[in-house]
Amino acid sequence: MLTNSKVIDVDVHNQLKSFRDLLPYLAEPWKTLIASNGIGIPDRGYPSPVGVLRKDCRPPGGGPAASDPNFLVQDLIEPYNIEFAILTGHLDGVSVMHDPDHAAAVASAYNDYLVAEWLPKHSSFRGCMVIATQDPVLAVREIDRMAEHPEIVSIIIGSAQRALLGQRQFHPIYEAAERHGLPIAIHPGGEGSGITSPPTASGYPTRYMEYHTILSQNYMAHLTSLVCEGVFEKFPNLKFVCLEGGIAWLPHLMWRLDKNYKGLRSSVPWLKRMPSEYIRSNCMFSTQPIEEPNNPKDLLAIFDMVDAENILMFSSDYPHWDNDDPTEILRRLNPEARQKIFYENAKKLYRL
Amino acid sequence: MLTNSKVIDVDVHNQLKSFRDLLPYLAEPWKTLIASNGIGIPDRGYPSPVGVLRKDCRPPGGGPAASDPNFLVQDLIEPYNIEFAILTGHLDGVSVMHDPDHAAAVASAYNDYLVAEWLPKHSSFRGCMVIATQDPVLAVREIDRMAEHPEIVSIIIGSAQRALLGQRQFHPIYEAAERHGLPIAIHPGGEGSGITSPPTASGYPTRYMEYHTILSQNYMAHLTSLVCEGVFEKFPNLKFVCLEGGIAWLPHLMWRLDKNYKGLRSSVPWLKRMPSEYIRSNCMFSTQPIEEPNNPKDLLAIFDMVDAENILMFSSDYPHWDNDDPTEILRRLNPEARQKIFYENAKKLYRL
Repeated sequence: MLTNSKVIDVDVHNQLKSFRDLLPYLAEPWKTLIASNGIGIPDRGYPSPVGVLRKDCRPPGGGPAASDPNFLVQDLIEPYNIEFAILTGHLDGVSVMHDPDHAAAVASAYNDYLVAEWLPKHSSFRGCMVIATQDPVLAVREIDRMAEHPEIVSIIIGSAQRALLGQRQFHPIYEAAERHGLPIAIHPGGEGSGITSPPTASGYPTRYMEYHTILSQNYMAHLTSLVCEGVFEKFPNLKFVCLEGGIAWLPHLMWRLDKNYKGLRSSVPWLKRMPSEYIRSNCMFSTQPIEEPNNPKDLLAIFDMVDAENILMFSSDYPHWDNDDPTEILRRLNPEARQKIFYENAKKLYRL
Repeated sequence: MLTNSKVIDVDVHNQLKSFRDLLPYLAEPWKTLIASNGIGIPDRGYPSPVGVLRKDCRPPGGGPAASDPNFLVQDLIEPYNIEFAILTGHLDGVSVMHDPDHAAAVASAYNDYLVAEWLPKHSSFRGCMVIATQDPVLAVREIDRMAEHPEIVSIIIGSAQRALLGQRQFHPIYEAAERHGLPIAIHPGGEGSGITSPPTASGYPTRYMEYHTILSQNYMAHLTSLVCEGVFEKFPNLKFVCLEGGIAWLPHLMWRLDKNYKGLRSSVPWLKRMPSEYIRSNCMFSTQPIEEPNNPKDLLAIFDMVDAENILMFSSDYPHWDNDDPTEILRRLNPEARQKIFYENAKKLYRL
């Protein structure tokens, strides 16, 4: 980690100590239901053989990793000189729940908990409000309810969705996000669970390793959908942030989209620019888990192809099992690019 | 096209004039059923706005493009100096059919038709037998029935499958393919139809452009599955050929697989090499549709990352709408790499 310069970390997973943390913020009937049954986000069925949370990040006072704001400051924020940490939580999976009211209730309770129990605890903390996308009317209501909180700087949703994110049912959500100037972060992890489709076009992978490897696919599908459906023509100031999806697939996607556009543009007449240009202007990406080729020059070549210094933002993904230290790659960048990726890009995007 | 050197084209889509071409090769009850209803491969629901077959390839005597062997020779084989054309047909979608007996009957009828009505028509023609994967016992029987024909050089299946291709139900098929020394080609196109899952983890794309752009995803999923399930440890001489899937996604997939293997290898203890090494040693890729970045050097950088000269084979995809002429890229390669991609790799793989 580059401790001699300021850092913004765009993906820090603050955790509930227990689902009971949400109970004070729930109304009935959800309070009773969740008190008896837990939060209710369907399990994805792919247990990680190494666990998802790092065992060495557990707070000394007990509870799961990253569930104690003070220990998180001591373990992550201070040693790594993090000026702002974007708290992404771990409940973005609400959009795979069967009942839209149940999902919206969990999202609202979490957002109130975040504002009450995390954001005041340290000057570096900024929050992502969670929304559930099943009922766009409820989602817009939640955005309007939370958007004016000065330390809420983004909306977060899961990449596991019942439908591809470019499709029209989501557009009211985008209107609200753009109106409030809030970027929408997408986070992977619930693919194939609840009301979503299987994780691949040929069904379910067997185990966590395959499942985790192909998570990036859903980002490719969502970006393709967002671009082709004209979301960025309709909402030109809307920004998406692809968290934890990697970036080395971007050249393929951009080139394939652009090539297909040349032959098939009659079916997307609302587009006014090449598809890859919308990705470059409206989408940002986080570093973790950065791809790690044997030859680091290969990743730098990919960085050049996608203009990484203007679309990439540092993230630790603390305290997930695969959180990485991408400085081996990033220290090979020129100082200006490094400064953008570690700091300036996020400062500008989140208006910090 | 480089007409001054010999070429092997690994993806030439010979077409039926009509589904009635299969009737002489069908037994009852399929003959009557298909005579009344057509072949029965479920439609994928994504019509191409430009059509799938090039209109300028229609034979002067009538029928669809590539349905007349003599005109195909005149239009493709002779002008482009093609020494061998691997005929891939257009019925690899049988594996999405609901009834395994119906699917197997179509595959067998096509294979007999191919042997009787195409392979004898020109010295360049070599054939891919189609198999349906729903019932592996029937698939193995078909492989054993057709494998000894000297001009059948490969097996072809669709990438649209009910399950990921590494999973165990497919292993008897791989045992048979390896025993006969036949590579298995995978061809995209039926994703989301019949008995398969939706084309993405978040459901159905809206139109052909999105659908076509994300077809490569299913290759990433199948390769991940084939590697992680240990198929290439169990069948070390088995080769797969990924047709029409592109290649620029390979660095991402290889790096992500290798990185995840380092953390999660306890769940795949049968692997003895890095995941990417199995892809390099057991999988081949065809050129069309090659990705076309604005700066051709970017694709050459990708070629270097994946050792393209040893895993890539030229394909025209004649007579599909997007068949391309990749010589703009390929002529920038050194002569040895070009010779391998246009000729030697396929000659060795198919034992021509």
